[in-house]
Amino acid sequence: MEGEERAMTAAATEIDTDTIAQRAADAATPFAGVPSKERASALVSVADALDAAAGELISIAMRETGLGEPRLRGEMRRTTAQLRLFAEVVVEGAYLGATIDSADADYAPGPRPELRRMLEPVGPVLNFAASNFPFAFSVAGGDSAAALAAGCPLIVKAHSGHAELSAATAKVVEAALRNAGMPEGSFQLVSGQQHGVELLQDERVRAASFTGSGRVGRMLADIAAARPRPIPFFGELGSVNPAYATAGAVASDSGLLAAYVGSVCGSAGQLCTKPGFLFVPDGTDVSAVAEAAAAVGEHRLLNPGIGSAYEARRAAVMGSPGIEVLATGDVRVDDEGHVWATPTIVAVDVADLDAAGETVLDESFGPLSVLVRYRSLEALPSLHERLFPGNLTSTLHALESESAAIAPLVRALAATSGRVLYGGWPTGVAVTAAMQHGGPYPATTTDDTSVGTAAISRFLRGVAYQSLPEALLPPPLQDSNPWNVPQRRSAAGLSQGWGSLTGTY
Amino acid sequence: MEGEERAMTAAATEIDTDTIAQRAADAATPFAGVPSKERASALVSVADALDAAAGELISIAMRETGLGEPRLRGEMRRTTAQLRLFAEVVVEGAYLGATIDSADADYAPGPRPELRRMLEPVGPVLNFAASNFPFAFSVAGGDSAAALAAGCPLIVKAHSGHAELSAATAKVVEAALRNAGMPEGSFQLVSGQQHGVELLQDERVRAASFTGSGRVGRMLADIAAARPRPIPFFGELGSVNPAYATAGAVASDSGLLAAYVGSVCGSAGQLCTKPGFLFVPDGTDVSAVAEAAAAVGEHRLLNPGIGSAYEARRAAVMGSPGIEVLATGDVRVDDEGHVWATPTIVAVDVADLDAAGETVLDESFGPLSVLVRYRSLEALPSLHERLFPGNLTSTLHALESESAAIAPLVRALAATSGRVLYGGWPTGVAVTAAMQHGGPYPATTTDDTSVGTAAISRFLRGVAYQSLPEALLPPPLQDSNPWNVPQRRSAAGLSQGWGSLTGTY
Repeated sequence: MEGEERAMTAAATEIDTDTIAQRAADAATPFAGVPSKERASALVSVADALDAAAGELISIAMRETGLGEPRLRGEMRRTTAQLRLFAEVVVEGAYLGATIDSADADYAPGPRPELRRMLEPVGPVLNFAASNFPFAFSVAGGDSAAALAAGCPLIVKAHSGHAELSAATAKVVEAALRNAGMPEGSFQLVSGQQHGVELLQDERVRAASFTGSGRVGRMLADIAAARPRPIPFFGELGSVNPAYATAGAVASDSGLLAAYVGSVCGSAGQLCTKPGFLFVPDGTDVSAVAEAAAAVGEHRLLNPGIGSAYEARRAAVMGSPGIEVLATGDVRVDDEGHVWATPTIVAVDVADLDAAGETVLDESFGPLSVLVRYRSLEALPSLHERLFPGNLTSTLHALESESAAIAPLVRALAATSGRVLYGGWPTGVAVTAAMQHGGPYPATTTDDTSVGTAAISRFLRGVAYQSLPEALLPPPLQDSNPWNVPQRRSAAGLSQGWGSLTGTY
Repeated sequence: MEGEERAMTAAATEIDTDTIAQRAADAATPFAGVPSKERASALVSVADALDAAAGELISIAMRETGLGEPRLRGEMRRTTAQLRLFAEVVVEGAYLGATIDSADADYAPGPRPELRRMLEPVGPVLNFAASNFPFAFSVAGGDSAAALAAGCPLIVKAHSGHAELSAATAKVVEAALRNAGMPEGSFQLVSGQQHGVELLQDERVRAASFTGSGRVGRMLADIAAARPRPIPFFGELGSVNPAYATAGAVASDSGLLAAYVGSVCGSAGQLCTKPGFLFVPDGTDVSAVAEAAAAVGEHRLLNPGIGSAYEARRAAVMGSPGIEVLATGDVRVDDEGHVWATPTIVAVDVADLDAAGETVLDESFGPLSVLVRYRSLEALPSLHERLFPGNLTSTLHALESESAAIAPLVRALAATSGRVLYGGWPTGVAVTAAMQHGGPYPATTTDDTSVGTAAISRFLRGVAYQSLPEALLPPPLQDSNPWNVPQRRSAAGLSQGWGSLTGTY
């Protein structure tokens, strides 16, 4: 056991990607074979262990990321609740999609044999951790929880922005999984971009997930697609999350602009769902923006790289034609090279937004947002589809009495976004069954979600079994159903009588 | 209407990919908004119209493909039943995955808003038709039925091997959809590889499907991945479908080898699930192979290109080291350039199979298969995973009394295949809810299925709606549930009580 323990923790420091990939591959069959309740139990054990280590982990995170204690406590709560939620999903078993078709010699499309289909783990998963959520999108975050819940051995590539925290978290996760009896190699940590790329190219890795910049995400997506055996790459790349307010909403909600500034500035604007644009009717009194911005304290950005990128983006936006500064904000570099910022909010006429182009339309990762003055509500749907073809979220503030007028805009938002909000603000992503955190490219590389329980489906593949004896079937497909999962059984023939009808209804 | 009719049929002859892509894009919102019963009705109308035109279409297909009338009648039956089956799926509505989470201020991971999620059509789909199923994998085949059922405007790129049939089928489909009131641009046909590539690169096309060779499929997959905005490419590229027989199965089933030859020779071996390899214990009496092969009549291959490729593959396999010919078969070219063949079955020792490498291991599209003599059942799982990493199907013939001995092989087959058969033969793919026709690369480019009702999910994306008034929600997410689809509602908090537990169970 001592040797095994050494081997399991060594991965975090030594880097030998061939050994790491082989250990993950060797774990694939035994980990996939762990009964559902034991796998769920292991996820809950990881949650318990993280809760127990929360004090130590949060203090490392505060030092490494500059994020405040209340935010990090909330993030840890979300992270452990997320693991428990996936434990429920695993035990409940609907995610397996177990489906049983009886043999039927008279089946309309032709005689059919007995078929049983379910979703099974894809094999080793490589997860590139994000910088901006050191718990919830990192070592033990959503992608990791989904991959482990699916039964896939997991390799996490740590984010350099919180290296010490990553190693400390990995130690907790490894120990919890080992104590819960999970196979060796079920979880491993690596660091360094080159090692991440080597593993992404390794034939033993079968799927990858990523949260980060568009530039790096696309580079990695291209590597995954160019492999001799391509693999799915689930990348979350960025989003400007446009929000729209009608004249009715602006008139009836006096706190709207202050709430907007609050959503822009949460975690210093370093959230993937930060509203980068708010469209208001031309002539709206926007004085509340500067007032609200002035009340926001200085916040350290996550790391010097993000800080200097923000500084450059801010200067480019402020120097674009037609830009009016509503709240100047401030950017300063401290003695350790960290960048500190207060909010910058600018305004632009909708016609100038079009003219300003990429510079203003790109995501600004930090406390900057653009207020856009529009004249015609009717023109917004086509404008939105042209300027914002792929986003994680889109938000609409309107009155219910305006439903008919805004229906086309709602359809345009749904066609281009993963989540459409009516009222409220997009920051704060609930971990639920109905969440969709993934939208048309370039928000994500595929339309799958990385938050919520539907995220588990990214790491599964369908397998059908034809006429197998009970003893050779996986438990979820056995008639005796030992895991007690939902089994969908097709009736013989066409099931609803619908297809046997002809003509129209 | 006359102008509209001309515009709808013109697409099959004139080729202007920009216009075609724009018409598909323009149809996306209206087609997605068609109520489910009307869309289902349109699919049934297409099935009815094809049934009515079956005589004419089958006679064109016989001439263009060389396939026999009984096979084509069966394929037409399957094709129209497939459309009716998808009509049922659309009306039943479970495929939408409608999920409703109520707002919950006390939700464990943090307060949550009301969220409602469903799957929506991705937008215009481009389907590259196959050569070997002129109905079931062509203009009105499985991919087309799935895309239309999902609510996606469809562009089919016709296969040149049955150009006249494609145009005639498209005319039937177009008229049926128009008569059923579907929006203009819901269905279009194009021909020519260059036009297919142009459309695959067009930003208005949002997903593509393909059935064909590994070389072309990979080329198209790479194009889809390299777009400024990448799109999912669901390609079925090829499969050798290994089968294994234990000593017990060989001893107890005297018809096993003749049935194997029958599966190899169905449609002259031009099926994606043809068993390319049968592993039998060394010492098995294989004389039945030659007898069965001798009874199979000459069959024309689909087109001269496939014929000459088959001739070259056959020569390469027969010239490989260690190959013993069990049934020589014959290949001849007729005056019109068509290639006719009788079955060729060769045998090889398992050690020589390894040595022969790619030449023998590659797919032979035509009536050729390789019988492999093995010595150790225990060695088969690792051999299989190494030689056959991705297949549509794998088949095992064994006795139930051998279950313990063959369990590791079953796991190896499931890890590398989309469908695992116990007994029987893989040709003949049932169109059911539990079918999986898609396996690890290189069988398919993704693990999704292209046959059966689960195929619809390829053309859908998740969208979540947060706090929308009833009137602005899509019908499947409304509380009044006007389409009467299954709605899954999450309880408040963690639903099973599972995640709130700690420790092990």
